Parts: sequence; structure tokens; C-alpha cells
Amino acid sequence: MIVLGIDPGLSLTGWGAVQAQSRDKIIPLQYGCIRTKPSETLPQRLHNINIELQKLIDTYRPEVVAIEELFFLKESSVVAAVGQARGAIVLTVALNGIKLFEYNPRLVKMALTGYGSADKHQMQHMVKTLLRLKEIPKPDDAADALAMAICHINTNYRVKSGE
Amino acid sequence: MIVLGIDPGLSLTGWGAVQAQSRDKIIPLQYGCIRTKPSETLPQRLHNINIELQKLIDTYRPEVVAIEELFFLKESSVVAAVGQARGAIVLTVALNGIKLFEYNPRLVKMALTGYGSADKHQMQHMVKTLLRLKEIPKPDDAADALAMAICHINTNYRVKSGE
Repeated sequence: MIVLGIDPGLSLTGWGAVQAQSRDKIIPLQYGCIRTKPSETLPQRLHNINIELQKLIDTYRPEVVAIEELFFLKESSVVAAVGQARGAIVLTVALNGIKLFEYNPRLVKMALTGYGSADKHQMQHMVKTLLRLKEIPKPDDAADALAMAICHINTNYRVKSGE
Repeated sequence: MIVLGIDPGLSLTGWGAVQAQSRDKIIPLQYGCIRTKPSETLPQRLHNINIELQKLIDTYRPEVVAIEELFFLKESSVVAAVGQARGAIVLTVALNGIKLFEYNPRLVKMALTGYGSADKHQMQHMVKTLLRLKEIPKPDDAADALAMAICHINTNYRVKSGE
């Protein structure tokens, strides 16, 4: 099963594609980020996110997209920007008929480290370890996206494989 | 020039299509709303908004879409829902290559009533009067969408026609 994790943002959307061979063997395929410029109009920025995400979907053909839940406690101007990017991302996923799963940041931390209040460094370290990477993935948004994909596999593989 | 005004929302998106024959002669084509159910998943809801909006674009072939600016002062959970619907709407407009204009609610009130703090009833009354309608358009979201379209025409016709 190939899972595409996404950490949505208007300026920076992190992504990470992984392949699950078993619950304990997750292979990283690629990760990176989609950037848009504040000098572009909102329609241009959302269109660019759509185009780049479509390329990722065409390249990796994920069975599932795992995305972070919108975190309501942030400043509403941040929620507005992330929310619009997220709307464009969710629509693009839906137009491709791909299943979308949303994960609470606390659940993602729990799935990766066993501790719901794990800090950014602990999370990044676990992403590196679980994917057998040589370095911590950069930028942070790509590491967060990979964490989302790993979380989906960890919370679903058991059920699917009957482990 | 045909303008499609949109008042975005996740549960209810108001829309109104108008045709400008001159700055003072604006003909209402049709108005209504797109509803989605809370029982549906977010991807289903955004996909439904996309499908219904695409039908409106195919039917009325607007030159311009006028949409309300995201109002940052609302509760962040509201901004999250409206933001995601708005992201899907803006992407759909961009995918159709249609120009999008965003208007601040205060500017819309000013354009329609000459008073930036006009209340809902004053605004709806002006929409009815300016479009020579027999009744105030319902629901409120459709009236707001028509107001957005009228605002675009009032603030742009002068420039275009050199009045």
C-alpha cells in the first residue's frame, strides 16, 4: 500500500510518499514540499498546489492520502490560509477518487513515539528511524507529512492484515 | 458582462448570477444555494460544491466570479469550515480560467448602500431594488452573493466603460 502524507499550507505544503510492505517495514519513496509565493494571487497559488499535487498523485498513485486535521486553536488568519490550501488539496484528492484520512496531531505523535505530547525533535527522530533514513527529512513540513503517512500505516495495517 | 457572486460556506454556499447591461442596468439571471450535509465526509462535501459550481459555470459562463473576503474576526472553527469550502471554490474557478475578485464585506455594503455599516435588512432591500425583484432573495446567502456581484459591477463598470 502506498500512502501519501500531506502537511497542508498555503506557502508551504509538505508531502511524503511511503510504501508499506508490512506494519514494520515502511519504505520511503520520496518527500518534499510544494511552495507558492505570496506575490501570486490566491487562485494562482491554489492552482499551483493543485498542479503539483496532481503530479505527485500521477507519479506515486497512492491508495490513501493522510492529512493533518485542521488545528482549531491557531490564530484565525493562519486557519484561513491553511484552510483554503487544505480545501484545494482535499478537492484534488476527491477528484482523483482517492481515500482521504485525517489525523489529529496528538494521535500522530502517539502513533510514532507512544507519547501524545512528543516534541518536534522526537517526532523527526522517529521518522528518520522508522524509515531508515540517513538524515532527518527537511523541511520540517516534509517530515510532518511523512509522520502522517506512517501514522496511517501504523493505525491501519493491524486491522487489514489481521495482525 | 455576466458576473457570478458567491458567498462561500461548507453547509451553504449562496450564489447569484447577474448580467450587467450598463452600470445602472443589472439583470438578475438566477440565484440559489449549494447545500452539503454534515453527514457527508469533507471530501464528499467539497466534491459536491465543485460539481454544483461547475454546473453554474457551464450554465451562465460568467466572465468574473466575485467572492467575499475571508472575514478573520470570526471564530476559528467557522474560519476553518468556510476556508476549506472557499479553497475548493477558488480552485474550481481557477481551473476554469475565470477571473476572481475578492471583496471586503464593508466595501460591498458601501457599494450598495453608500454606508459601510449597513445592516442585513438594508442590504437585502437594496439588492431587491437594484435588481428590480419582487421579493427579497432567499436564503440570505443568495442575497449576499447577489450583493457581491452587484458590488463588482458598480466598482468596475465605471473604469471599463470610461463613465
